[in-house]
Amino acid sequence: MRILVSNDDGIYSPGIAALAEVASEFGTVRVVAPDVERSSTGHAITASRPLSYRATNIKGLTAYRVNGTPADCVSLGAYHWEKVDAVLSGLNIGLNLGNSLGHSGTVAAAKQAALLGLRGIALSAPSGAEPDFEPFKPWIRRVLQLLLGDVRLPLVNVNFPRDPRGLMWARASVRRYDGRIVPVKDPAGRTLFWSTVVPIEDADAGTDRWAVEQNWISLTPLRLDPTDDAQLQDARDAWPLDDALAMAVSPGTSSPEAARSVRDDESEASLTKA
Amino acid sequence: MRILVSNDDGIYSPGIAALAEVASEFGTVRVVAPDVERSSTGHAITASRPLSYRATNIKGLTAYRVNGTPADCVSLGAYHWEKVDAVLSGLNIGLNLGNSLGHSGTVAAAKQAALLGLRGIALSAPSGAEPDFEPFKPWIRRVLQLLLGDVRLPLVNVNFPRDPRGLMWARASVRRYDGRIVPVKDPAGRTLFWSTVVPIEDADAGTDRWAVEQNWISLTPLRLDPTDDAQLQDARDAWPLDDALAMAVSPGTSSPEAARSVRDDESEASLTKA
Amino acid sequence: MRILVSNDDGIYSPGIAALAEVASEFGTVRVVAPDVERSSTGHAITASRPLSYRATNIKGLTAYRVNGTPADCVSLGAYHWEKVDAVLSGLNIGLNLGNSLGHSGTVAAAKQAALLGLRGIALSAPSGAEPDFEPFKPWIRRVLQLLLGDVRLPLVNVNFPRDPRGLMWARASVRRYDGRIVPVKDPAGRTLFWSTVVPIEDADAGTDRWAVEQNWISLTPLRLDPTDDAQLQDARDAWPLDDALAMAVSPGTSSPEAARSVRDDESEASLTKA
Amino acid sequence: MRILVSNDDGIYSPGIAALAEVASEFGTVRVVAPDVERSSTGHAITASRPLSYRATNIKGLTAYRVNGTPADCVSLGAYHWEKVDAVLSGLNIGLNLGNSLGHSGTVAAAKQAALLGLRGIALSAPSGAEPDFEPFKPWIRRVLQLLLGDVRLPLVNVNFPRDPRGLMWARASVRRYDGRIVPVKDPAGRTLFWSTVVPIEDADAGTDRWAVEQNWISLTPLRLDPTDDAQLQDARDAWPLDDALAMAVSPGTSSPEAARSVRDDESEASLTKA
Repeated sequence: MRILVSNDDGIYSPGIAALAEVASEFGTVRVVAPDVERSSTGHAITASRPLSYRATNIKGLTAYRVNGTPADCVSLGAYHWEKVDAVLSGLNIGLNLGNSLGHSGTVAAAKQAALLGLRGIALSAPSGAEPDFEPFKPWIRRVLQLLLGDVRLPLVNVNFPRDPRGLMWARASVRRYDGRIVPVKDPAGRTLFWSTVVPIEDADAGTDRWAVEQNWISLTPLRLDPTDDAQLQDARDAWPLDDALAMAVSPGTSSPEAARSVRDDESEASLTKA
Repeated sequence: MRILVSNDDGIYSPGIAALAEVASEFGTVRVVAPDVERSSTGHAITASRPLSYRATNIKGLTAYRVNGTPADCVSLGAYHWEKVDAVLSGLNIGLNLGNSLGHSGTVAAAKQAALLGLRGIALSAPSGAEPDFEPFKPWIRRVLQLLLGDVRLPLVNVNFPRDPRGLMWARASVRRYDGRIVPVKDPAGRTLFWSTVVPIEDADAGTDRWAVEQNWISLTPLRLDPTDDAQLQDARDAWPLDDALAMAVSPGTSSPEAARSVRDDESEASLTKA
Repeated sequence: MRILVSNDDGIYSPGIAALAEVASEFGTVRVVAPDVERSSTGHAITASRPLSYRATNIKGLTAYRVNGTPADCVSLGAYHWEKVDAVLSGLNIGLNLGNSLGHSGTVAAAKQAALLGLRGIALSAPSGAEPDFEPFKPWIRRVLQLLLGDVRLPLVNVNFPRDPRGLMWARASVRRYDGRIVPVKDPAGRTLFWSTVVPIEDADAGTDRWAVEQNWISLTPLRLDPTDDAQLQDARDAWPLDDALAMAVSPGTSSPEAARSVRDDESEASLTKA
Repeated sequence: MRILVSNDDGIYSPGIAALAEVASEFGTVRVVAPDVERSSTGHAITASRPLSYRATNIKGLTAYRVNGTPADCVSLGAYHWEKVDAVLSGLNIGLNLGNSLGHSGTVAAAKQAALLGLRGIALSAPSGAEPDFEPFKPWIRRVLQLLLGDVRLPLVNVNFPRDPRGLMWARASVRRYDGRIVPVKDPAGRTLFWSTVVPIEDADAGTDRWAVEQNWISLTPLRLDPTDDAQLQDARDAWPLDDALAMAVSPGTSSPEAARSVRDDESEASLTKA
């Protein structure tokens, strides 16, 4: 089994070494990860510049570092290593729960794997944990036994609590955002605003947040499609717009010219921004 | 009706002015947007530093610029202006279709609105279009009449083709990723790799990509919850793990201490990264 | 006379338009500037990726935007337009005085011009000024008459006070740094530290800072060479090290191989960093 | 002797550990460095947000990581540790020679030390070298013996060749920039431009570049003042402008109000940019 390991903390993060070490028990491992920490940068594929792909050394593992995003690493990794079976992303230093996983680079790498038709598994540990990942290794092993073995889900998000009691399936916690804005003064007397994220004290039972709060490892199957199918159907029924006309007069397959034109019209950072 | 307008191209982008102008016909408009272009930076709430919120002038509109992400702008905007009815994000220069909307700052602002319990509408125009948005204004008007009027969906993603023929509801296009890696040499002879996104020539009829290719404005209701409910149920049935035990022994509501501890263990960029 | 105009605030900053407009009275003007604000990014030549150079429109001027640094813009501008006579950088929104000009992108563009053998002139206005540059135009005109006319200095840094009384030559203010660290608490109770720059109340008469405080426009000729010649000579005299040996045994001109090897060993951001 | 060690490659770079280890032989060492690599970001003091200062562990050394620039680290380090005797910056992975040291974060940290009235020493190793710094340690030791001992220069830039033969004083190499623009096509057929830095084959004997090419360690005393004194005097003599008037009518010391106003008008990234 060929297992590609990436992350968003950068290739020299202790978390990726810990994950790759356990993954090595399940197959051949190759590490392809960003050369620096990319948590706070864009998660899209980098289309405005070419990327480097350079061999490096991570505890005796075959490893490559890329000057791009986690998703870039997965694309380049799959390009250079055919027949990858699964992509692991992590072990992230910091949980990725509920709403917040929308902007997680760790999850973005796993999503990119799923888009490429590969299995993607994102794994995150508590940020408060010491960068000693030894206690997590037996649990990582058990998660991989499950997700690389019988359970062949295309995209799963896994979070480890500080002291795991066991594993459970969990849905993402999507409670409303409980942030709080706190005005402060800077030393020059200007008012600034902290955007603090307050603890969400009533996470629903069965969600990833609740699971981790109760010291269960959460496993959440994710979907790539962000459409709200129920609302879409309701909206179509109640306000039909030009849907019927569009389906009637437009061919089922667009012309190559139309496909190319729309492709050009999608956002591509600095290359196409006016 | 109070309408907050934001974007990810930055407050001085011509797109936001065009959108705000049309929105003014529907209520009181306030613009709160990033001080510089934020397409390629993080989309999360900024929790590691306080944010500035400064009055500026955009074509006679009440406007504030924030040194943060699009999601920060929505949070700060809603903090400073109570009883906001809807948040518009755009008009983005560049379409946000299918898979790619996961890393769109334009969509992130609309999502943040939905998380705050407000309606969020993301609007994107072709990047190839001239920064003359006049031809789009009648269509923006029609979209707002619909989405600020009868149809009160919490989160909708709207894309405008170059020459719209009408409006249609569409699901997101989630075809597999059709990227292609192209190796090139830099002037020093080192091999680098372009990650090019090739045109997807067989977008499914009824998707946002297909709609825009056929010159229909696409309206896609989005869900905040990324869970794959069907797979979650299947997985629970086939591999029960410790789910039953967890639900039996863990209280339905976590303690405040557990909530706070997990909150601290979530990733927070540079403040908590080891 | 061919005049290349760049800046670090980005090509759509009102300051560059004002400067280009006045410069047009002195010759043919071409604007080549970063596509987004680059004040806080690297000032070196970008060697890790290729750059785009795209025509755009700035108030009827010939203009190109580059996805790179101010120094990149000068290099690319000079590449595309042979026989440039002078490079103007600005009008920056924010003064660049004394010590701080070492990390100014505005000054970096002018320095790059000087390195290319072109005249480089950096011009900065008060950041507190309204983005109405009309009152500065007569003064910009007078500065350009002087520096594009008789006075042909290779590299000059110019700062405009809010209400100029006249022009004076000034040396850079290099008083010790009078910053002050102020500890603050974030909303979670963690201590953070503001690095505030306190007003320097005793700028020496004759320096750029003093000049601007007294409402004189300061013109400061800069040197490219950062060597402290006097200290170098003193050190050589007092502690000769291997200087004599090195000069005796090493050839006056290095081999091409040695030049190339050292070139490779210089820092080049992500491409060569381990 | 109290020795503060910083860098721009980030606190977990192997270079800073190697430098700190040798420095420990000369006094008490404290490491204060950026939490991530900062080579390509701004070098100024960060004035727009507060900074964190967090204890971390680097091979048993007292160490703190800062979410800011190298110059910020020096300021915060000196704030928290009174009576620092010297600041070492490095060991940078990548040489910092001649013109390029103007945008070096490694040199910026040493400059900040000098601005604070402390000695600053920047040390850089070849980027092509293996991240095994053992062979450099005896040479680092000899450099520190010299520069922390008898020779008490305020600001020195040191570069190590791959196989040092000895030490020499050298002036900075300020040959004109020998870059070359190379047009390339991206996979979509668009023309882009590589800015390549060609080897400078005729570095002057006695300069830092020449020294390193000949395998001598170069030590270059730097000045903080960028003024070209000779040109300033010549310009004053030939075109007196309003210098005499300014010196006659303006007080030798500015008012506190004027100092504060000019301070506010200096550039401060996102906080004051319009």
